[in-house]
Parts: sequence; structure tokens; C-alpha cells
Amino acid sequence: MEEFSAGSALSALAERPGDGTITKEQLLLSGLTHSAPAVPLQLTRSTNITPGLRYRNLGKSGLRVSNIGLGTWPTFSPNVTEEQAEQIIVLAVESGINVFDLSEAHSGRLYKYSETAAQTFSEKEKLRTRAEVELGRILARRGWKRTSFIVTTKIYWSTRSEERGLSRKHIIESVKASLQRLQLSYIDVVIVHKADPMCPMEEVVRAMNYVINQGWVMYWGTARWSPVEIMEAYTNCRQFNCVTPIVEQAEYHLFCREKTELYMPELYNKIGVGLMAWSPISMGLSQGKDDSSIQLFSRASFRNKYSSFSWTEDETAATNKEGYGWMKERIQPEETRRHSERIRELNGLAEKLGCSLTQLTIAWSLKNESVQCLLLGASNVEQLYENIQALQLIPKLNTNMVQDIERILENKPTRPPMVSTLALR
Amino acid sequence: MEEFSAGSALSALAERPGDGTITKEQLLLSGLTHSAPAVPLQLTRSTNITPGLRYRNLGKSGLRVSNIGLGTWPTFSPNVTEEQAEQIIVLAVESGINVFDLSEAHSGRLYKYSETAAQTFSEKEKLRTRAEVELGRILARRGWKRTSFIVTTKIYWSTRSEERGLSRKHIIESVKASLQRLQLSYIDVVIVHKADPMCPMEEVVRAMNYVINQGWVMYWGTARWSPVEIMEAYTNCRQFNCVTPIVEQAEYHLFCREKTELYMPELYNKIGVGLMAWSPISMGLSQGKDDSSIQLFSRASFRNKYSSFSWTEDETAATNKEGYGWMKERIQPEETRRHSERIRELNGLAEKLGCSLTQLTIAWSLKNESVQCLLLGASNVEQLYENIQALQLIPKLNTNMVQDIERILENKPTRPPMVSTLALR
Amino acid sequence: MEEFSAGSALSALAERPGDGTITKEQLLLSGLTHSAPAVPLQLTRSTNITPGLRYRNLGKSGLRVSNIGLGTWPTFSPNVTEEQAEQIIVLAVESGINVFDLSEAHSGRLYKYSETAAQTFSEKEKLRTRAEVELGRILARRGWKRTSFIVTTKIYWSTRSEERGLSRKHIIESVKASLQRLQLSYIDVVIVHKADPMCPMEEVVRAMNYVINQGWVMYWGTARWSPVEIMEAYTNCRQFNCVTPIVEQAEYHLFCREKTELYMPELYNKIGVGLMAWSPISMGLSQGKDDSSIQLFSRASFRNKYSSFSWTEDETAATNKEGYGWMKERIQPEETRRHSERIRELNGLAEKLGCSLTQLTIAWSLKNESVQCLLLGASNVEQLYENIQALQLIPKLNTNMVQDIERILENKPTRPPMVSTLALR
Amino acid sequence: MEEFSAGSALSALAERPGDGTITKEQLLLSGLTHSAPAVPLQLTRSTNITPGLRYRNLGKSGLRVSNIGLGTWPTFSPNVTEEQAEQIIVLAVESGINVFDLSEAHSGRLYKYSETAAQTFSEKEKLRTRAEVELGRILARRGWKRTSFIVTTKIYWSTRSEERGLSRKHIIESVKASLQRLQLSYIDVVIVHKADPMCPMEEVVRAMNYVINQGWVMYWGTARWSPVEIMEAYTNCRQFNCVTPIVEQAEYHLFCREKTELYMPELYNKIGVGLMAWSPISMGLSQGKDDSSIQLFSRASFRNKYSSFSWTEDETAATNKEGYGWMKERIQPEETRRHSERIRELNGLAEKLGCSLTQLTIAWSLKNESVQCLLLGASNVEQLYENIQALQLIPKLNTNMVQDIERILENKPTRPPMVSTLALR
Repeated sequence: MEEFSAGSALSALAERPGDGTITKEQLLLSGLTHSAPAVPLQLTRSTNITPGLRYRNLGKSGLRVSNIGLGTWPTFSPNVTEEQAEQIIVLAVESGINVFDLSEAHSGRLYKYSETAAQTFSEKEKLRTRAEVELGRILARRGWKRTSFIVTTKIYWSTRSEERGLSRKHIIESVKASLQRLQLSYIDVVIVHKADPMCPMEEVVRAMNYVINQGWVMYWGTARWSPVEIMEAYTNCRQFNCVTPIVEQAEYHLFCREKTELYMPELYNKIGVGLMAWSPISMGLSQGKDDSSIQLFSRASFRNKYSSFSWTEDETAATNKEGYGWMKERIQPEETRRHSERIRELNGLAEKLGCSLTQLTIAWSLKNESVQCLLLGASNVEQLYENIQALQLIPKLNTNMVQDIERILENKPTRPPMVSTLALR
Repeated sequence: MEEFSAGSALSALAERPGDGTITKEQLLLSGLTHSAPAVPLQLTRSTNITPGLRYRNLGKSGLRVSNIGLGTWPTFSPNVTEEQAEQIIVLAVESGINVFDLSEAHSGRLYKYSETAAQTFSEKEKLRTRAEVELGRILARRGWKRTSFIVTTKIYWSTRSEERGLSRKHIIESVKASLQRLQLSYIDVVIVHKADPMCPMEEVVRAMNYVINQGWVMYWGTARWSPVEIMEAYTNCRQFNCVTPIVEQAEYHLFCREKTELYMPELYNKIGVGLMAWSPISMGLSQGKDDSSIQLFSRASFRNKYSSFSWTEDETAATNKEGYGWMKERIQPEETRRHSERIRELNGLAEKLGCSLTQLTIAWSLKNESVQCLLLGASNVEQLYENIQALQLIPKLNTNMVQDIERILENKPTRPPMVSTLALR
Repeated sequence: MEEFSAGSALSALAERPGDGTITKEQLLLSGLTHSAPAVPLQLTRSTNITPGLRYRNLGKSGLRVSNIGLGTWPTFSPNVTEEQAEQIIVLAVESGINVFDLSEAHSGRLYKYSETAAQTFSEKEKLRTRAEVELGRILARRGWKRTSFIVTTKIYWSTRSEERGLSRKHIIESVKASLQRLQLSYIDVVIVHKADPMCPMEEVVRAMNYVINQGWVMYWGTARWSPVEIMEAYTNCRQFNCVTPIVEQAEYHLFCREKTELYMPELYNKIGVGLMAWSPISMGLSQGKDDSSIQLFSRASFRNKYSSFSWTEDETAATNKEGYGWMKERIQPEETRRHSERIRELNGLAEKLGCSLTQLTIAWSLKNESVQCLLLGASNVEQLYENIQALQLIPKLNTNMVQDIERILENKPTRPPMVSTLALR
Repeated sequence: MEEFSAGSALSALAERPGDGTITKEQLLLSGLTHSAPAVPLQLTRSTNITPGLRYRNLGKSGLRVSNIGLGTWPTFSPNVTEEQAEQIIVLAVESGINVFDLSEAHSGRLYKYSETAAQTFSEKEKLRTRAEVELGRILARRGWKRTSFIVTTKIYWSTRSEERGLSRKHIIESVKASLQRLQLSYIDVVIVHKADPMCPMEEVVRAMNYVINQGWVMYWGTARWSPVEIMEAYTNCRQFNCVTPIVEQAEYHLFCREKTELYMPELYNKIGVGLMAWSPISMGLSQGKDDSSIQLFSRASFRNKYSSFSWTEDETAATNKEGYGWMKERIQPEETRRHSERIRELNGLAEKLGCSLTQLTIAWSLKNESVQCLLLGASNVEQLYENIQALQLIPKLNTNMVQDIERILENKPTRPPMVSTLALR
């Protein structure tokens, strides 16, 4: 496996039927249980290239990532064995994916609402810890060249844990611990998850520069930072001659669009910060029960209605320990009805295209040029395979199709009007 | 002890009565021998949180410290066994304290006056050396996560020792030696004790930046530096792109107020340097003889009367090798009488509040928001326990109470009037 | 061999006839099969100094290189044994050469045109990898002092390989891999081969600064960069306080002159970037078949005719995967005839000087003061020996001779006229 | 020997008569064979402090050096055994000296004139190499605390050696080699011996900054640099945010005064570069034959007459490979006569003061406040002991005495008049 060519996934799987017990037939026959009534997309399967897979520079850096990355959270979840996880990783590599992202479910949305934030932090930490250990073992076992794959992991923090907030101490300790668990000599991109308003930005950028200068990390980025916070980090990097961040990880899908569509292009153009997108749908988190998926969309949709920065409000809600309970009360019955209608219409569109709703939302996200890498997650090989196929759907999303989707969604984000104090006179 | 919740001190002690031989009863019954006639404060002991313990960012850094830190000098003094010291450390940790400060008695005030400065330096050095070795052993034995505690230690220097003054060589050698004694891979905060007028500030800040970039130290601070020296350090850091100091350690109590009250808020607001305070009283140094405590207050008080920068004068006196002999001559009998009266009045106030004078002075210091961390010292578990209880006193120090104290002290510091050469014409 | 004096090549060879089986006689008798009809130059062979060998500072750096360096590509080619390679290295060292340059054939010109670029990259990589391993073994075996020789190697990249382009990750991985293969604690000069328009210059200069600060590399340079790209690198170094590049490796010979003659002097004077030159002829790549050599010249000549930046066009062609096929179509028969005539005239000149055409072209290149180091390659000892003798030819290239050559070549480069938009009005 | 007090030399020697075989009596009785007819100075020998020994900050750095340092060149010369060398080192330490300077005879003046510079370089290198190895062994054997002594060594270079000039490569290799020979983890001060006009100053200061940042070196300085070169180094340090040099080593004695007296005070005041002085007389190089010493003075004197920058001319002469042969021709008989007269008069003065001429010249040099450290050399214990005694002579050099010396010397340096091009009109 010295020099794999992108997208030899299928042939590879076919070649070792005894190895992973997954055959071409199995993949073809595997039924999908998604909320989408349509038959999932199965195109050009005989070629040994994953059509549509591209390599793009992440932000304005020299690091070239596949436009699809593997979000490993569902892969290393409790109900997936290490053997199954390894098959998923192998499929990703053989499909040409070179990004493995370590994170837990970003918003903690799927946790029981009654949990306290402190418990959630600790649980999340354990899940990610296990993911790093297992991914490290798989990478070591497979013996892939270190140059051929990219590992991104995160620095999480909480004011309730022993570490008590973001700090130089916490950043350095986190990176060292991740390196040890992963058994790697360096991490490709370390992502700082949420900015800490109590920790000066100078301290964060100096600490990130330190871990890079130690050779432990190649690049750094952010997750769930506001555009202003990202600009502040950049300004501090310039002031103290530190390495600038190259990427923001943000939620992006049909029902969560503002940050990515309104602010990320400007950040990319002005300071070279790119976008790694994820969504509950593409991470495979909506799987299992049909209605849970619909509900997921619903929630996103509703949040969307009431805030221009959904990720901020979400955050506020989480730290308020209220979970999403507030939604049940505030959401109007009329809204729920409208949303169900939208989902139905989108399903109709997917059916016309011959794909599932999940595939449609993936393709739609990938079509946005701001998205340099879309993280897909999977808890089994078939799910990942199907989601990857969404790449072939992109050319079908022509102007008419896109306009149809806009018409259904009715949520094209616009910048709030500038409020001038002069105008108020 | 993976994730201790702050302040489980008492329950923890109660749970292992055979371990440390200290039981709830013993603590309740332990008599206090302080100068304060009042019964010490014993509030809300049944909860498993130390009420009033807070975590604050040290200066404008991301490092969050408990508002009470353990000053380990009395803990590792000759008449405390390592077993007893370990019990004190454990109580501190279980109370939620996450700061261990290594220092010797700051001003050397309790040493015999006849000693030469050189001898004092050497003796001090030995005491601190032993403290580092013992603390290192205890931390290793207990196996607490490195992320959960903060160790601060100091760089002392003398022109009379072999090292001959502050220098890059001395700073680097000191840090390396401390690391070895502590058996830690890094120190959280290294404090430079006194500025050396003979060593350029550029050399100091570059050396501190060096030890931080080596990963040996996370942050640095100062002790007994004048506001102008701290500003000079900051300016040099900015000029040479070095990491700025985050804390000044200063004496602060009822009778030593100027630096903390007049200058530290400005330093915090302008350059982010916070305050770690200590006092002979809260460090348990006044214990044993009643009158020594009063004398201690007295001295501070007198110095206070005659200088606006008490720590500077103190310093000057020390280097003059005169000790405090000068006081005996200059202090008027009238002053002594007035001071004894004040102590009597304060004791009355403490009695009213149902606490000891030591607890009152601790609570009064903690009430000042400039004090991010107050160092408490103890040579036995009971003493530390009682001093920690002072946290519960803070809410009782309402406006009236504070005004009463001001009225008794008559030492509210004010900035000296600006002397304008124009005005002299 | 503690302190070798420059140029004891011959005596050394003579002294161990049983060792390498090469004797003075053999060298004298060895026939040349070059395209040049003239008898190769054989001057002042009895002295133990290589006449004309000089040490020059490379760019405006303190590193002093011999004006002739050994390009090791032909040395570690498949049809040369490691024993023969070692003899070539030894001859170079004993001649006073202190530069060993590791590279593959720069333009890939001699590869079959049908190859895809990806295959070419992989093959090239293998050749250079082998060269590093063998050179490392020879240097270790000989035990020369590390201070006495200079190793330069390259960072190659391709968008088609796993590494996918130039990046901090790729630069660091490349240098580490080269160090391991060479078994050296540092490389003297690392050359970045081609700029990557997709990788920000800031990332490149920071990464080069990083490998230098790690102690892995002493200096860095570029190969096949345009003057504007070199200036951009320099500007970024100044902006981010990074170490500036000291050298550009460029093709330079009778038929490829623009970059070296028009732009390198300016770069040297303004930003201290020097020149290490190579040519297909001096690297011994034209050997074997007479006409291939002529063809080589021809190609260079033709390219010359149609572009002022030959190396740029070459590059463009290569990335277009068209190879040099386009030439066959565009080159006029008239041009071919004129070029053959020029070669004939130059051969006549060489004959007059008593040297081969290869020697003449080497001497002519060395005469240019911008060339601080000319890389000579050889697949056998005799070839290297003869090429080194060209040093003695330099004084013979007087003004008349140089004018004669200019008259024959008719390709003295001139800057394209400034096109002023004002003039167009 | 944990905490030695400065200057316990004599008592220490007296206490272990069997150890080093040197007793108080032997020192008292030891006859001096210097050119000076006077009886050497023997004052206040019963105290256990070396009177007059002071610690001064070297340049404007925090490093405090004894005002007398041990120049180890004569100590590790071929005709001194390692045992004898160790006794000299021990005497130095017990006298309170904390500086050991490794160098060979600075100007090579005592070498045979016929030698080529290349041979000289190689020989010098060998001597210094041996000195480092032996000093390292002695320091390790004695087990002195690393903080208690200061080792300074040099980076020499030559265009004729393999290393070929000053360069980043040469600087790094030199420091690493010295560290290995000395068996130390760091060198206190590394001195760059002569600037290389061919090596950019940026490269030198970046390389010195590198070795400091690696922890291999604490400070750096220069030797035999012109004031303009030192200023250039300083400017480059400021431009590239590198650590500035703290010291220049320069020749300074009765007959070589310009650089030290005219230029070093300005450099100290403006950029904090201090002075470590040496002279052939104080290094014990004039010992053995009386007339050689006189001749030494003579030469210095003559050079003095004809140049304002003696060290520059000296240098020029050396690189011209002419040695000092030119002097024989140019020096007028009249000059020789005048000089002998001066020596006679100075000897008279020394006699009056009860000291040797060598002691007088040492005391006279130490009296200059620009000299923070005067290097004394010795090939035996007695010689060092006597030279150290010169410290007690300093108070005797009152204004009258200094004026007498000036009157005899007639060489008080003055700045050359500013030549204004305006004035020439």
C-alpha cells in the first residue's frame, strides 16, 4: 500500500472478501434505513477512482486535504468494535480520504438534556480519549506512511474540570496527552474548541506557536469561534509574530447556513482561514429512527429562524444547562407544520435525483466552494460508502436545482442591516 | 481521586480517621492559641464544598487559581515532619486549593537580627531546597494529575553568594535545579524575587522567555518589585517580543496596604499583572507567642507610618544589615500605645463576628478584589483548616464593618501629592 | 587525511594504484567519446594543486564553497557501482571540491516523454533516495571531518504524490527523511525545488526557518524559482524575521543564459542570493551518443529563441504533460540547420584551444563571476577529472575569445523593453 | 568547598602542605626572574581575602566576574604538567577568581616569523583544544559547583583551514566541539575571534543567538573587533531581535592604549559592551629572558607610534604573512634608545613602590575602570600568586604616580582630529 491511488475503495474491498467480510455485493445489496425514502445513489462503481474526490488547500496553507474527511466520532462510539472501526478507516483511505478528525459530538445535542455540563465534559473527554488511542493503534498496525494522512484533533476545556479553562498550561498538556495516546510524533492540525473569554488571546496564540515550534503540531485552527474572535487571534499572531490559524471548523448544512455563507468567505479572503464543515446529518448522527432525523433538521431549522449566529445561541443555551428544552415551549405549532412540509419537499427532490436526503444534503454542502473539507462520519462501512457517493451528485446540482432548494428552504442568510446611530436621529 | 470536587476536605478527613489521625471531632475541639481571644469561626461544616472558595484567573492570564493558595514555608519548616506536611497538603487539595507556593519567609523578619545577609541567604536557600524536595516527593506519592495543581517557586539571588546576582546564568541554573528537586517536568509560575539593579531588564526577560520556551516554565512573575520595575519588565517584554509577567507577589494585610491598594489595580488594568498576596499573619508566622503577633502588627504599622512604599524601605534596611534595630530607636512611646489600642479594638470586632483576629485579617484581605490569590501557611492541619474557614466570613464584611475597620486603622493609603516644580515657583 | 590540501587528486590517485585501479597513465590514455572532436585538455598535471580551483562565499553567506561542486546524480545512477561512485567522490575531495549536491536530473528531460509526471516524480524520488543513502555510507566510511564538506539536497514535491504539494508538513518530513538516509546530524544547504503557487510563501519561509532552528539545516536555497518568487521569499523572511535564502540553483550554459546573466547579478547585489549553476552538459548527461548531445544543445537553443525565461516555459510544458513533443512541430528546419552550424564553429574554437567542447562550455560558465559554484557530474573518474581540468582553461578565455563565442552564439540576452502604458497612448 | 569565600588562597595553601607541595614559605621564598629588578610586592598576606579583588558586571550584563581572570594559555602550554596546571587553577579559585579564559597567544607574536598563517592556525587550534580538554578534566575532578565559575572560550577561524572562514556552520561546529572537549553542558561566554569581512554580520549574530537559544552558551562577545564592527553587530542584533554581545577582549597595557582608552568607554556607555583585557606581560609571556620582555614592550611601543589602531595593523601584518619583519627595517635607532630609557624609568618607579615592573603594569591596567576583567596568565603557582598581589598596589597609584607614568610614557592616546571635507575648501 505504498502509493495508493485515490478511490480504489471498491476494487480493494472486492479483492479481499475474506479479510473484512464486506463484498461488492453486500454493499450493493445493503438496504438503507434513513429517513429518505429514495434509493441511495449508486453511480460509476466500476471505476477505481472515487469520482468527485478532490484535494484542496486547507485555508491559505500548503496542506492539501481531500474535500471529504472522516469525522471519527461515530466510528469510535461504544457500539462499534475496533475491528469494524478499522474497516471504516481502511475504506476511507482507499477512497482517497486523507483527513481523520477526532472530536466528540460537537454540540452535545444528542446527550440527555438532564446532564450537567461538567459530566458532559468528562464523558466527551473519555470518548475522544478512546478514539485517539484506537486510531493510533490502527494507524500503527496499517503502517501507512505518515506523510500520506492528516490527523486533526481538538483542545477542549471547561471551567468545571480540574484544568479550569483555556490556558498555556492546558494547551500544552492537552497536546502532549493527545500525542501520547495517538502514538504519533506530531498532529497535523490542532483545533482549539471554543475561545475562552477569560484567557487572553496573546496567551492562546503564543501557546499554539509553542506547540508548533516544538514540532508537536504542524498547523492550528479553531472550532465554534465567532468571526471576531478569529480576527482577534489573527491580529495577535501578527503582533507577536506567531503562526496564524488556517481553519475554522463549523456546522454547515441545509438548515445552518449563516456563519459559513456570510462570514467564512471574508475570513478566507482576508486572513486565509479556511473551513472544515460538519453537520449532524453528514456525521451519521441522525441514523436509526426516521423521526429523530426529522427532528434534528427541525431543531436546526428553528434555531435558524430565531438567530443569525446559530452556533452562538446554541452555546449560550448549553452553558445555561437548559439543553434544548426551551425549544419545546417556544416553537409554534405552525412552525413545526411548515418544517415538516419542507422536509417532504426535499425528499421529493432527492427521489428525483435518485439519492437519499442525506446524500443530497452532503452534495449541497460540498457544492459550496468555501467548504474545503466536509467531515463525514459513519458507524459502519456501508454508511460511509453511501455518503461518499454523494460526491457524484454534485454535478447534478445545477442552477435550477439549487434554486429549487432555495425556494423550499426559504432561509438564504443575509447580513443584518448596518444599524447606524446617525440614522436614528 | 480522578475528579475531586472542591472543598470535600472535611468529609475526606472524616472518612479516613485511621489514616491521618485527624477526625472531625479533633478539629472541632482543637483549641486555638492565637492572640485573638475570640472563638474561631466554625460555619456550615456539613457541606462538602468549602464555601467561598473561588477560582480566578491569575493576572490577565488563562491560569485559574483558587483564591486561597498554600504558602508552604511553615509547612516544610524544621519542626514539622514530612508526614505532617503531607497531611497539610492533602487538606489543602481536598479543600479545593490548587496553588502551592514555595518560598521562605519573605522578609527574613523573623530571623535573628544579628545574622549577616549572606548567612541568611544561604539558610533560606537550604529551607526552600528542602521544601522543593519534600513537596516533589509528596506530589509523586499522591499521584495527582499534573493538570490539577499549580506549583510556584522563586528565583532568589544575592550578591554575596557564589552566583553573585541575577543573570541569565543564574536564572537558568535556578530553574533547572528547582525542576530536579521537584521531580516535575515543568513549574507553573517562576517568581523572580527582587529585581537586580545591576542586571539589565532585557537580560531578565529574555532569560524568563528562554525557560518558558524550553517548556520548563509556564508563566513568570515577580516578588517585591516596585511598580516601576514591573512596568520596565513589561516594556522590555514588548520590545523584544517576550512573554510578559502575570503576577506580583506582595505583602498585604491590615497594616501593609499601600502597594496593593494604590498600585496593583493600575498594573492589573494596564498590563495584566495580578496579585498573589501574603502576610506574616496569614502565613502562620505570628503563632506561638501572643505578643510576638502584636509586635509583628506593630512593626508593620510603624513602617507604614513612615513610608509609602513599605517593602522598599524594608529592603533598604535589610541590605544595610541593620535589621530592624532602627525601629527601636525611632518609634515613639506614644505610637506604641496607639497601636496596642488598635489591636484591642480589632479583637473586639473579631469577637463580635465570632472569629479570631487572624481570620478577620484573612477575610479582610480576601475581600479586596485585587487579591487573586491569598497565600495561607500552616504548620499543622488545624491551623490551615481554621484559616480556610475565614472564607465564610467575607460576606459578613459589609460596608459598615469595613468602615469600622478603617476607622480603627486610620491608615487608608493615599497617593502622595504630585510635586510640581511649577508649583514651587 | 586530516587536513587535505586542495587538488592533490593526481598524486593521490598515483599513490594507490592497487586501490582504485586508476593510474595516471589510464587517465592520460582514456579516450573521450564526447561530441567534441578535439583532444581534451591536459595541463600542468604534475602540480598537486588543482589550478583554478577557488573557494567563494555562496551568495552573501559565510559558507565558502569550491567553485566546482560535484553534482552526484550521474554518480549514483543505476549503471555505476557503489565502489565506482566512491572513487568519484574521493577524486572530488582530493581535487579540493567541498560541495556534494544531491538531485536528480533537473528537468526530467532525458526521461521518456510518454511517462506521466506522477511516475516521473516517484522514479526521481527513488533515484535521489538511493543517492542519499550511498553518499551517507561513503562519507561515514571515509570518516572525513564534518566541517570539511558541504552537502546540499533538495525538497521535491508534486501535487500527484501522497504528500500533495509543498507545505510545512512536507518540508519537515522531507528534511527528516534526508537526514536519516544521509546519516548526518545536519544538511548544509536544503534547496526547495520549484515554488508551489498554492502554498503561501510565509509557510515556506517559516518552515525553512524551523528546520534551521532545529539544527537540522544550516542554510536554505531555491531551485527553478523565478526572480519574483525569490524576491517574495526574501520579503517574507524580512517580514517574519526568518533566515533568508542564500542560493538559487539554475541551469546555465552556452545556450541557456537569460536568468543567470540578466537577473542573478541583481538578486545577488540586492538580497545576497548567489548562484549554483548546472547544465546537462557539465553534469555529463550528454555523454554516450554524440548526436544526443547536439540535440540537447539544440533544444536549449530553441527554447532560448522563443522565451526569455526558458525555465518557466519548460516547467509549463512539463505540467502540461506534453513533454517536449511540441518542439518537433514548432522548430523550423532552418533553425535546426543554423544550430548545427553553431555547434560546428564552437567545436572549431575548442580545437584551437586544445580542449573538448564540454570543457569549453564549463570554462565559459565558470568565467561568469555570478557563478559561485558550477556543478559537474560524472559517472566515472576520468570524466570528472577531465571536466575539472577545464578550470585551467579559464585564463585562456580572453576578451577576443569571448567575443568570438558571442559572435557564434548570437544569443546574448537582453532585458525585454519596458512596456509603458503611457507610451501606448 | 561548597561555598568558598573569596581570596582564601593563602590559608588554603597553608592548610594542605602535603597536597600541592606548595607552602607559604615556598611562596615567600620563591625568587622572581622577571625583567623587573625590584623585589615583588608582598602585602597583607595574613588576611584570608585577596585584597582588591572585586566582582564586576561584565559589560552591561548580569554576569559578575572577578576583576582578575585566569588566562589559561600559559597554564596549558607544553612545558607545564597537568598536575601543575591544576595547582594554578586551584590557586585562582581560592583567590576568588571566577573566570577561566581559553585562548592561545592572541597575536601569534611569539611564534617563529617564518611560519605560514595556515600552520599557525592549526598549531594554535591544537593548543587550545588541549587546554579545553585539560580544564574540563580538572573542573570535573574538583567538582566545583557549575554556578561558581565562568568559562570563556573562542571561535577561531581561518580562510586556509578546512572550515574556510566564519560562518553559521563553523560557529555551531566550534561551539559543539568545545562543549564536548570541556565536558560542560554550557559555556558562559563564547568569544568570536576577529570579524570575517566575507561573512555577513546578520549570519554571525543569528548563529550566536542560535547557540544561546540551544542552551549551549550563556553570553557572547568579540575579540580583536574594531569599534565599527562591534557597532555593526549590535545594530544587527537589534534589527533581528538577537541577544547582543556583552564584551570585547582587547590588548591593553602601558604600551597599547588607544582602543581601550579612546573607544571602549563609548561602547560600554552606548551599547553595554564591556572589556576583558589581556597583555603579553600580564599573561606571563615575557618571562624567561629579560630582554625578550623589553623587546615585547618595544614592539608594542613602536606599533603604537605608527598607528592609532594597533590591533588592526597587527592583523594586517599577520595576514600579509610578513610577521613582524617589517619592524626591523622601519624602526629608527633613535626610537629604540628612547624606549629603553622609558623601561628604565618605569623600573625605577616600580622599585620605589616596592614591586616588579610586571606588577606595576598589571596594577596600572586594573586602575582603568573600563577594564572589568584583566586576564592574568601563569605557567606556575608563584607567578600567578605574585601577579595577583598587584591588586594591592592599585590604591598606591595616586594622581601623582599616574602623572609620573604618563610623563614617562608620552603615549596618552588622543582621537585623531575629525577631517572635515568642508574645512578643506
